[in-house]
Amino acid sequence: MSKVIFQIEGGSPVTMECNDGENLLELARRANVAIDAPCSGNGSCGKCRVKILEGEVESLPSRHISEEEYQEGWRLSCSCKVKGDCTVLVPDIASAYQSRMKTADLSSPKEIAIFEECEENLKNSGIHFVNRYRSVVLTMAEPTLDDTMPDNERLTWAIQEALGVEKVEIPFCVMEKLAHTLRENAWTVCVKGELREDAFLCMEIGKRSDTALVGCAIDIGTTTVTMVLTDLTTGKLLAKGSSGNGQIRYGADVINRIIEQGRPGGKRKLQDAIVKETLNPIIASLCKTAGISCRSILRLSIGANTTMNHLFVGVDASSVRMEPYIPSFFSWEGLLAGDLKLPANPLAPVLIAPNIGSYVGGDITAGTLASGIWDKDEMSLFIDLGTNGEIVFGNRDFLMSCACSAGPAFEGGDISCGMRATDGAVEAVTIDKATMEPALSIIGDEGQKCVGICGSGIIDLISELFRCGIINAKGLFVREGSRIRRDAHGMGRFVLAEPEESETGREVSLNEVDIDNFIRAKGAIFSAIDTLLKSVDMTVDMIDKVYVAGGIGSGINMKNAVNIGMFPDVELEKFHYIGNSSLTGAYAMVMSDEACTKTHEVAANMTYLELSTHPGYMDAFVAACFLPHTDARLFPHSVQEV
Amino acid sequence: MSKVIFQIEGGSPVTMECNDGENLLELARRANVAIDAPCSGNGSCGKCRVKILEGEVESLPSRHISEEEYQEGWRLSCSCKVKGDCTVLVPDIASAYQSRMKTADLSSPKEIAIFEECEENLKNSGIHFVNRYRSVVLTMAEPTLDDTMPDNERLTWAIQEALGVEKVEIPFCVMEKLAHTLRENAWTVCVKGELREDAFLCMEIGKRSDTALVGCAIDIGTTTVTMVLTDLTTGKLLAKGSSGNGQIRYGADVINRIIEQGRPGGKRKLQDAIVKETLNPIIASLCKTAGISCRSILRLSIGANTTMNHLFVGVDASSVRMEPYIPSFFSWEGLLAGDLKLPANPLAPVLIAPNIGSYVGGDITAGTLASGIWDKDEMSLFIDLGTNGEIVFGNRDFLMSCACSAGPAFEGGDISCGMRATDGAVEAVTIDKATMEPALSIIGDEGQKCVGICGSGIIDLISELFRCGIINAKGLFVREGSRIRRDAHGMGRFVLAEPEESETGREVSLNEVDIDNFIRAKGAIFSAIDTLLKSVDMTVDMIDKVYVAGGIGSGINMKNAVNIGMFPDVELEKFHYIGNSSLTGAYAMVMSDEACTKTHEVAANMTYLELSTHPGYMDAFVAACFLPHTDARLFPHSVQEV
Repeated sequence: MSKVIFQIEGGSPVTMECNDGENLLELARRANVAIDAPCSGNGSCGKCRVKILEGEVESLPSRHISEEEYQEGWRLSCSCKVKGDCTVLVPDIASAYQSRMKTADLSSPKEIAIFEECEENLKNSGIHFVNRYRSVVLTMAEPTLDDTMPDNERLTWAIQEALGVEKVEIPFCVMEKLAHTLRENAWTVCVKGELREDAFLCMEIGKRSDTALVGCAIDIGTTTVTMVLTDLTTGKLLAKGSSGNGQIRYGADVINRIIEQGRPGGKRKLQDAIVKETLNPIIASLCKTAGISCRSILRLSIGANTTMNHLFVGVDASSVRMEPYIPSFFSWEGLLAGDLKLPANPLAPVLIAPNIGSYVGGDITAGTLASGIWDKDEMSLFIDLGTNGEIVFGNRDFLMSCACSAGPAFEGGDISCGMRATDGAVEAVTIDKATMEPALSIIGDEGQKCVGICGSGIIDLISELFRCGIINAKGLFVREGSRIRRDAHGMGRFVLAEPEESETGREVSLNEVDIDNFIRAKGAIFSAIDTLLKSVDMTVDMIDKVYVAGGIGSGINMKNAVNIGMFPDVELEKFHYIGNSSLTGAYAMVMSDEACTKTHEVAANMTYLELSTHPGYMDAFVAACFLPHTDARLFPHSVQEV
Repeated sequence: MSKVIFQIEGGSPVTMECNDGENLLELARRANVAIDAPCSGNGSCGKCRVKILEGEVESLPSRHISEEEYQEGWRLSCSCKVKGDCTVLVPDIASAYQSRMKTADLSSPKEIAIFEECEENLKNSGIHFVNRYRSVVLTMAEPTLDDTMPDNERLTWAIQEALGVEKVEIPFCVMEKLAHTLRENAWTVCVKGELREDAFLCMEIGKRSDTALVGCAIDIGTTTVTMVLTDLTTGKLLAKGSSGNGQIRYGADVINRIIEQGRPGGKRKLQDAIVKETLNPIIASLCKTAGISCRSILRLSIGANTTMNHLFVGVDASSVRMEPYIPSFFSWEGLLAGDLKLPANPLAPVLIAPNIGSYVGGDITAGTLASGIWDKDEMSLFIDLGTNGEIVFGNRDFLMSCACSAGPAFEGGDISCGMRATDGAVEAVTIDKATMEPALSIIGDEGQKCVGICGSGIIDLISELFRCGIINAKGLFVREGSRIRRDAHGMGRFVLAEPEESETGREVSLNEVDIDNFIRAKGAIFSAIDTLLKSVDMTVDMIDKVYVAGGIGSGINMKNAVNIGMFPDVELEKFHYIGNSSLTGAYAMVMSDEACTKTHEVAANMTYLELSTHPGYMDAFVAACFLPHTDARLFPHSVQEV
């Protein structure tokens, strides 16, 4: 047995015993040490870097580790086997895009505007923003020897009086503390709950001053999790936060995670990674920001893809990936926060936006609701850029949808210096054609140094490299210059920031493998759009509107996205970035009973096109894996200034 | 700090560190070591005996420990203070009446007859033994690429077909294992649940062969817990078991336990003592006996007094004992087994027989239901002999009830050699007047030696001692003989078994303090009956029937009970022993929806007479604390053969 000590940057060390020959990444997983491994440990992504501080390990060489770095002790943990005792540094940077929870990004008026606009549009479509949650302050007569009604009857009576309901349900979690709460508050309390037809479900009892009724809308992405707390009465956003999905250490894509879930103890492990390790800390932090108690959260809504929904509730997802691809559920009524031990009122319903297929999930039905395309005459294209790309096309008469596997590139995954759109991310780039010098726009306060590059930055950079003739249609470097470097194998890269200019002391660059990964991602998206349109005998010029959604950031430059052949070449004014529409849709659901009903209607009316078995999709994909496309006529506005 | 090791007979040793001077019984409680202490540690009951094996303790002398025993190291733990390291033997005998779970006592045809008779009588009163639990075996079509309905819709559809219901609820605990269960059982499964109006709540899914629908009826007495498992379709008893209430170590009576509950962590401690330590092991054991899974228990019912109900559900009971004596609830709808983590289907409703006052609880409303007196023209007296004695009097037109504190004497508590009516208990005694030699009837197999004496045995013994002129009307010994011994203070006792004749090697006897305790208990009962009758201007000769209930055992000799002035002196054929009517009533509730409704009706129509503030009760009590009574004319058939 050897002893491996994981020194976690910014955390406590973890010691594990294991046999020699055990894989270091596997060992870290067993020890619950978070190491980012989007490629699930096959050596391709280069994210799982660790530094051997003491002892040594057996390791394979990797193009992601330079000779100098190797000398310093850097290794890819997925490519290491334990060989005797050792001490391993797990750098915080390794989990840069997983961690870095952000809870205070309500400052952006742009962000708030997206929610307001969604609400406004839905209201115009006849959806009322009304729900049945109520709080009421009650004063009861103190019992005496002549008035010996027991506590629960006294409370029932007061609620009946105040709300004019016939039946009052007082569940266990309220009964448990009833005697104490009534007396501690001298018989004046605030009661919160759900008003049903002639009945009231009493969900919480507490002091008179705490009248908050809070909803929590959550987007569970494969890579990123985002949520908002909202006032269930006014709709005001109380707090917003996001974080990486803690399941990332079990693989970047849904397939790897389903495989992990199928192993012994896997259901619990994957569920814990999303619920305990990811959602619970964000909810707790947002509640603190908003100054409310978690128990004031009386309703939650979830926008997530089919697999994320299954892993979240701890339901076996293996049949999702195996023929005949049968999920355990599309929609689910009656799920409660207490079932999942979420830090909320245990009786709070958890509304899951309905899935419509194994690969088109609730994130898309919620997003479609938010986009409003289901209520329009004009033909709209809805594109959700996530780890999977999903496309919906149609109008009030019909809706077609399909999904393609884009990989995590849009959120910075599978890109050597990629990261989510948080502080330190390059979100926009322009390049001077002559000097080839880049001008960067970095997220964060004045003076924020560069950490990596996020989706919108990568689109800009590739588009600019292509426009300036620095790379060719295949994404290979064809010019030389001080910003362009090549490794021993001749692989080119473009340097955005030298080690000394970056936040982390490591060079920030984009290499040919990154560009190739990104071209595949954009190719998947465009070919899916192309195939979906063809399936209904439509062409690009029939598109009236394009709604682009996803965590890629409001900084996305549509012109550049068209330039590289990611989106169809339509007039730029037809494009609308609608933000994280899964989250906006979930927000509408948590606020409005009618929005919930409508989401289920939209889901029921949506037709699903399975691309993987669709004739022509593979050809379309291959044709799209060029800049902008093998058939350049499809992109008349794409520019390469040669 | 001193180290105390508790050597538990038949268990693992427990080591505690504490300061010198700490009370040994308190320390044992903190260590969760079960030591019987019905008097709650005031030194009066003598039950909390331990033996100091190593080291020493500071202790007060006690009349319960003989000089010889003291030399051997025996002490009352409540009267000891720690003084340095020591090792303490906690004898199994100390908890004789708490432990000794019995699960296989269905053998007695008498026992079964009581349930059958109750069912028969209730059916004659128009109560149908019908409930809404159903199991159904379903075969579903295996999904294919052309039949891609998700699992939950497939199941819903099959249930709708089979049961003709419109709506099907599939809760979390079923959804969680749905995918796996359907596939493991090749799409043929047994589904169990509750059929509601046009809806079915699916509570369990499993293999086709497991179709059991099980109810669990529980009587939670202050001293003793008894339960039966029953087939919800046929009503057949599947298993029956009983055990001491594990809360006994926090005091013999409800008042001491309410005080304990009010201390920090008390709610959890008292609830754990009844749920985790008492009910859960019995349920698990009965399920094993019956060959069913705990999850097949789809409904539970509870007959318990008001305080036991509060402690059981973990609800603050302190207001029950403090003016104005307001319980948190009389009746409670919507409690589920999962709320209390009972080993049953988590969705199984827990039906609590309604309380009607702080001291007349669900055990009495359930018992009244079972007695059938609510449907009779004749005037009936219902007496429940427990730690509290409760009396109900009336007929179909009116029902009056009251409660008195009898103490645990009827169940063998507060009696030096007392025990519950289980193996080794003397349950009947006759005495030869001339030789004063007793003839004992002992519960158990042939050759079972005597361990102690249970309630019915004590009644017989006192009645016989009185008839033979061995004790006088005050319960003091007035004859001498080989069976009669006196201690250094002159206190007399009657020896039933010499040390060498007993199972435990300790003398089994009844002393004057025991007799005095018992006379107070029987005096409390009789004076309650007397006061209740007077309150409605009735006399003893107007009583048509007397139903005696309680765990005192079917061996109770009514003639002897009248002889000592415990029950009113009416014709012996008017007496009926109806066993543990709280349990029989709970059995009716778990089996029959109409019985539940009727119990609530009975409770709503019952008038409660508060004895503690009733003028005349104290005088009546004092007058009844004689054999048979100060006014002997009330007992014309009582005999003292002088």
